[in-house]
Amino acid sequence: MGNIFSDRISDVPRSFIREILKVTLDESVISFAGGLPNRDLFPLEEIKAATAKLLEESGKDVLQYSSSEGYRELREWISARYRKKGMSIDADNILITAGSQQGLDLLGKTILNEGDSVVIEEPGYLGAIQAFSIYRSRFHPVPVHEDGIDIGLLGRTLSEHPAKLMYCVPNFQNPSGISYSTENRKQVAELLQGKNILLVEDDPYGELRFLGQDKPSFHTLIPHNTVLLGSFSKIVIPSFRIGWIAARHEVMEKLIIAKQASDLHTNYFGQRVILQYLKDNNIDEHIEKIREAYGRQRDAMVSAIREYFPAAAQYTEPEGGMFLWITLPEGLSAMEVFKKAIELKVAFVPGDPFYVNRTNVNTLRLNYSSVDAGTIRTGIRRLGEVLKTMIG
Amino acid sequence: MGNIFSDRISDVPRSFIREILKVTLDESVISFAGGLPNRDLFPLEEIKAATAKLLEESGKDVLQYSSSEGYRELREWISARYRKKGMSIDADNILITAGSQQGLDLLGKTILNEGDSVVIEEPGYLGAIQAFSIYRSRFHPVPVHEDGIDIGLLGRTLSEHPAKLMYCVPNFQNPSGISYSTENRKQVAELLQGKNILLVEDDPYGELRFLGQDKPSFHTLIPHNTVLLGSFSKIVIPSFRIGWIAARHEVMEKLIIAKQASDLHTNYFGQRVILQYLKDNNIDEHIEKIREAYGRQRDAMVSAIREYFPAAAQYTEPEGGMFLWITLPEGLSAMEVFKKAIELKVAFVPGDPFYVNRTNVNTLRLNYSSVDAGTIRTGIRRLGEVLKTMIG
Repeated sequence: MGNIFSDRISDVPRSFIREILKVTLDESVISFAGGLPNRDLFPLEEIKAATAKLLEESGKDVLQYSSSEGYRELREWISARYRKKGMSIDADNILITAGSQQGLDLLGKTILNEGDSVVIEEPGYLGAIQAFSIYRSRFHPVPVHEDGIDIGLLGRTLSEHPAKLMYCVPNFQNPSGISYSTENRKQVAELLQGKNILLVEDDPYGELRFLGQDKPSFHTLIPHNTVLLGSFSKIVIPSFRIGWIAARHEVMEKLIIAKQASDLHTNYFGQRVILQYLKDNNIDEHIEKIREAYGRQRDAMVSAIREYFPAAAQYTEPEGGMFLWITLPEGLSAMEVFKKAIELKVAFVPGDPFYVNRTNVNTLRLNYSSVDAGTIRTGIRRLGEVLKTMIG
Repeated sequence: MGNIFSDRISDVPRSFIREILKVTLDESVISFAGGLPNRDLFPLEEIKAATAKLLEESGKDVLQYSSSEGYRELREWISARYRKKGMSIDADNILITAGSQQGLDLLGKTILNEGDSVVIEEPGYLGAIQAFSIYRSRFHPVPVHEDGIDIGLLGRTLSEHPAKLMYCVPNFQNPSGISYSTENRKQVAELLQGKNILLVEDDPYGELRFLGQDKPSFHTLIPHNTVLLGSFSKIVIPSFRIGWIAARHEVMEKLIIAKQASDLHTNYFGQRVILQYLKDNNIDEHIEKIREAYGRQRDAMVSAIREYFPAAAQYTEPEGGMFLWITLPEGLSAMEVFKKAIELKVAFVPGDPFYVNRTNVNTLRLNYSSVDAGTIRTGIRRLGEVLKTMIG
């Protein structure tokens, strides 16, 4: 039998992180490689109560097929939460998705023709690279720095390559942990305003700020151009796979068609349990607990890095989220560091998968959300030993 | 702002059924339009027990992110069930999906280039037409009759249009309710064997047989060519959106990449609840209840049709599943019948959306799974009145 596969599937990189994670299944390895929220913070008792109450009160209603748009009352809850933050997004403009990842797939489906240009951050979120690769877009990476995306290069890229989509994670970016400053956001907004481009603002970590002040969403600055992605995975639990897209009416119409064709609708039972949980509990108090824990763990990681890493290794200092980014001296391959680190039982994700068409990069991602402060110190000390040997 | 949408999304028909269903929200309308399983048969108490037990015993384990392939033990359960039916499908060859609909999307992603030929039944399942339309395939519809697909036309179609995919629902087809005879399956298998084509055998209703004998799966006849889709939606509950694809290794590898890019993984909590339910209950006894109920409702519909419909209206006599198909005299538009039927407070789905590029067809789909026998008689009587007026 000959090759039967589509051209598009051969363009998609297999998840590098999944391969990395296999190495870390060994329980003696301290892993900064994952991207998991801390399970100790999952509201287990509250989810138990919400599930039992829901099945008792709504019974078979929550077991049947449901609507492609998602459960109305959950969309209204999301709309109301945006309103509290001063953002005006109607429930009609919210589509419930199977996590943010599906939001990316639906956007690829509805927007991208083969060869269309997509602006992406460098380093950028691997899941977005995978999702858009399926639709055979051409990526134009623009570097991010501590205060946001490189405005000069963004301007040049946009004029040289009229793009249909720009993808960004302005709050506590995955993988780098950096955030766009207010000024940087305004400059991006100015560049995009009036152009025929959609800015995909992926915001899974926005609520997890432990330092500094909230910055304005692109949805506030350029609502017509912005598609906003959100998720309950990082603030409640991930296993239900419940996220959402917020977009203007004409985009929403197309997204709903794509959603129908993709999976009819998102797991309805999970939507109802999440809503029950949100109604019966104080989500702000819960998020505060996550912020405190992640803030503590981030501080442990930053101070251990200062103590144990050679000075030539640069690091970001995130104000929220789950990740921190290391830049090694030029020419040092993070992949080589990884191989040595595994021998000392510590793991991370080498930067490679976060770039389009670059390998053996000198950057790496560290996750601090899923490991406690003590373990973080031990792991960073081990990694420091490796780096000192290699940097010399 | 100019048009920003992809060409592919403009090719996909908006779900006609969704529009139809809006008309039937009026509770005084007897609806044969939906495609829902009967909620009276949902195992609510058992799901309650399974959920509580799972959260008690596995706790936070079931709230975290999980693997793209799906929960291993659930895949093993599915594999074992196939083995009981004499089919050899390893758990490694099973991918858990967000319902069968996602299986179709993943197959489109991994197999279809723009312009690739897809053989589809006529009438065919609307969800498949939508899913493959996204990938801009060319459809080649082949008619189905009471005993299966038209073999002569299938042979001619395959030689004129080398297709990469053939999609079929050989058991109690949606929309027609017909099943492929064993002989017909063997003829199809012979035509496909050795060709570079995948047969997508969609089997959501296979377990719901209330008459006759089980027929061999294409997976038994031509395993190398067959991709088998299954679902818990019709035999347990639909709201969790848990289905699966079974395929050979090299296809599976590509499907997993597509799955990662599409939504990372299927709702893990739902997978675990379903498995807990399957472990603690006798699924065969439960399926027997569904079979009996649907068989009774099907009998009520067939006998009411014999009593109330004019002789010129032909009908299929399904041996299982949820649907029955009416063929009106040539030239009579089912869409026109629908408009009159709604006035008499009875609804169905006109055949139009089940054809590629045909409208005002003289066929229609009736669902008997979600309405009790007494209501079926009343609804069919009303529809008979409409038909008698229009056929004269």
